[in-house]
Amino acid sequence: MVLPIVEFRIDPWGAEVIREYDKLFKYFGIRPFKEVLNELAKITEPHLLMRRGIVFGHRDFEKVLEAVKKGERFAIVTGLMPSGKMHFGHKMLIDQIIFYQQKLGARIFLTIADAEAYAVRRLSRKELVDYAINEFVANYLALGLRTKDLTIYFQTNYRKEYYRLIQLFSRKVTMAEMTAAYGENIEPGKIIASLSQMADILHPQLEVFGGYKTVLVPVGADQDPHLRLTRDIADRFSAELGLERPASTYHRFITGLDGGKMSSSRPESYVALTDPPEEAGRKIMRSLTGGRATAEEQRRLGGRPEVCPVYEMHAYHLIQDDRELEKIYTDCKSGRMLCGECKLIAKERLVKFLEEHQSKLDRAREVAREIVEVPEF
Amino acid sequence: MVLPIVEFRIDPWGAEVIREYDKLFKYFGIRPFKEVLNELAKITEPHLLMRRGIVFGHRDFEKVLEAVKKGERFAIVTGLMPSGKMHFGHKMLIDQIIFYQQKLGARIFLTIADAEAYAVRRLSRKELVDYAINEFVANYLALGLRTKDLTIYFQTNYRKEYYRLIQLFSRKVTMAEMTAAYGENIEPGKIIASLSQMADILHPQLEVFGGYKTVLVPVGADQDPHLRLTRDIADRFSAELGLERPASTYHRFITGLDGGKMSSSRPESYVALTDPPEEAGRKIMRSLTGGRATAEEQRRLGGRPEVCPVYEMHAYHLIQDDRELEKIYTDCKSGRMLCGECKLIAKERLVKFLEEHQSKLDRAREVAREIVEVPEF
Repeated sequence: MVLPIVEFRIDPWGAEVIREYDKLFKYFGIRPFKEVLNELAKITEPHLLMRRGIVFGHRDFEKVLEAVKKGERFAIVTGLMPSGKMHFGHKMLIDQIIFYQQKLGARIFLTIADAEAYAVRRLSRKELVDYAINEFVANYLALGLRTKDLTIYFQTNYRKEYYRLIQLFSRKVTMAEMTAAYGENIEPGKIIASLSQMADILHPQLEVFGGYKTVLVPVGADQDPHLRLTRDIADRFSAELGLERPASTYHRFITGLDGGKMSSSRPESYVALTDPPEEAGRKIMRSLTGGRATAEEQRRLGGRPEVCPVYEMHAYHLIQDDRELEKIYTDCKSGRMLCGECKLIAKERLVKFLEEHQSKLDRAREVAREIVEVPEF
Repeated sequence: MVLPIVEFRIDPWGAEVIREYDKLFKYFGIRPFKEVLNELAKITEPHLLMRRGIVFGHRDFEKVLEAVKKGERFAIVTGLMPSGKMHFGHKMLIDQIIFYQQKLGARIFLTIADAEAYAVRRLSRKELVDYAINEFVANYLALGLRTKDLTIYFQTNYRKEYYRLIQLFSRKVTMAEMTAAYGENIEPGKIIASLSQMADILHPQLEVFGGYKTVLVPVGADQDPHLRLTRDIADRFSAELGLERPASTYHRFITGLDGGKMSSSRPESYVALTDPPEEAGRKIMRSLTGGRATAEEQRRLGGRPEVCPVYEMHAYHLIQDDRELEKIYTDCKSGRMLCGECKLIAKERLVKFLEEHQSKLDRAREVAREIVEVPEF
């Protein structure tokens, strides 16, 4: 079942609102994820984000299915930006990562994108390390990421072969390509961050890092320009290093509770995984919805779950059971259930989730400090 | 004694001929090396390149003198570009390095600038490794560079802290500064090479690389823009990493035997350290000189050693004894000695030098292969 989540706001560069996922299919060759959903379902039940069309597109996902069927090892590459609080906008990605690790046996390469974070946010080393370990990695572990088959590293503190890859890549990419994918007025720090991102995605294929020839990169819909450039780079080093193109999947963004993008820069837009549960509950109760001007009108016309941040919280995070979610959708759409009632359901689920999650955080932070090697200077 | 070597051609970017070393003194704060020559002479006899004014300028050389007097450790950073043959234009630099290692107890950090070489020449990994080891490092060792207190590394195959430094530097430098120092139309490969060069110069100061606070970089006169930018970078990381500005010295370029720059790209311009001695001798005999149109005219007006590539070979390389060199200079200047005779002296010295040097090369190549760690891919 792909739920009717027909219209989402995404805002990749912090400004514009884009609704045209179709462009990705039409012009850039991304395929609808539903094409591979049935094949995946033969192996394991697809994650709810996949069942519900939130993971909506892919490139070369067949490679992953093939590797799994043949019992070949494959790797997931993902990154975290150690800046701000981890919120439910970030959680979607790690939910998928955990799915691949636990259900399909993927090895996870998790890069702490401190080069990127510094280029964008200018945080100190101490802040970068603190956000990375105590905020992000700890939350990942508490969500269920296993330390087995997991490689975590800071972009600025990894093995020399990773840097050799960065240097080799720098030789076969032009400034024009860089600015096309990463924006005009690109500065040296951003160039290093961009080359690092390419190395993040492609390095697991090297023998010295395990030689994983099937690599999947799950990303948000805004990341495709970087993936396209990385695929080109893989082609350019196909003969020299035996690199192959990575597979990728694309997910929609969750809408912030204030109707904009869910973003660390606006606390009213997000629920953080470390928000006190009661405060998180209050945020939900104050959220924008797809409701009508009056209760009477809403009973008559029905609500609009397709533009409702609370419905998205249900669909992306809070309701595991598809039939239960469908009931919320139809009860809203038909006008049977009003926003207050729906918010109370969301609040109750959220509070319960956060209490349980946060009870694991202290231990998760200890483990995070043990397994992540911190840059010395 | 600073010999009258008053006019030299340098051609830093492969095209223009510049004679205005004075500009470096006037506008960029480089000090005349003769100002520190006497102080150096109190410690050890200055190298002939210093005595003869070929090393003509410096920044902060007092720091080096002070470190030596106090018995503090200091380091020399130098690089080689693994491309083409090592010739007498390259030898001047390594002669200085060996002087600092043997006479003043410097630790030598020798970077194989393969990132730079690739950016400029597009050589394969195999070629880069071959040039680096069999052509350059082997010749350095045969010239007398000791393996004790020597660190040699490929820019693409060094320790991770070196790359962390590159990443940190990239954060505090702008594209405008890069293009000012390294040229317009700078591409990603060149940016990485440039950041690597900064890390080459500054990394010995880090604790993990020995914590050398006095670092000297002997370079050709064209390299000052890079030194100036590197000094700025050191300032910017003074608080964060405790970096200090490097000292530097500047040498004149030797003129090619054809009157242009001595360059690997024109075999008739150079004598390589691996040229068969007899062939090298023939090159000297065919060289341009500062001679006059006819023997009669030369006897009457005297030769012009100040614009003579053969005289430069004497002054830079072949004649160790200053008085002997002075005699050649005055005999030429007065018209007592004509070019044929002078060339024969040069040829004889050169053949003898090359025979002796090349007899050490096989063993030097073995040692080079032992001490240089080669990139795996």
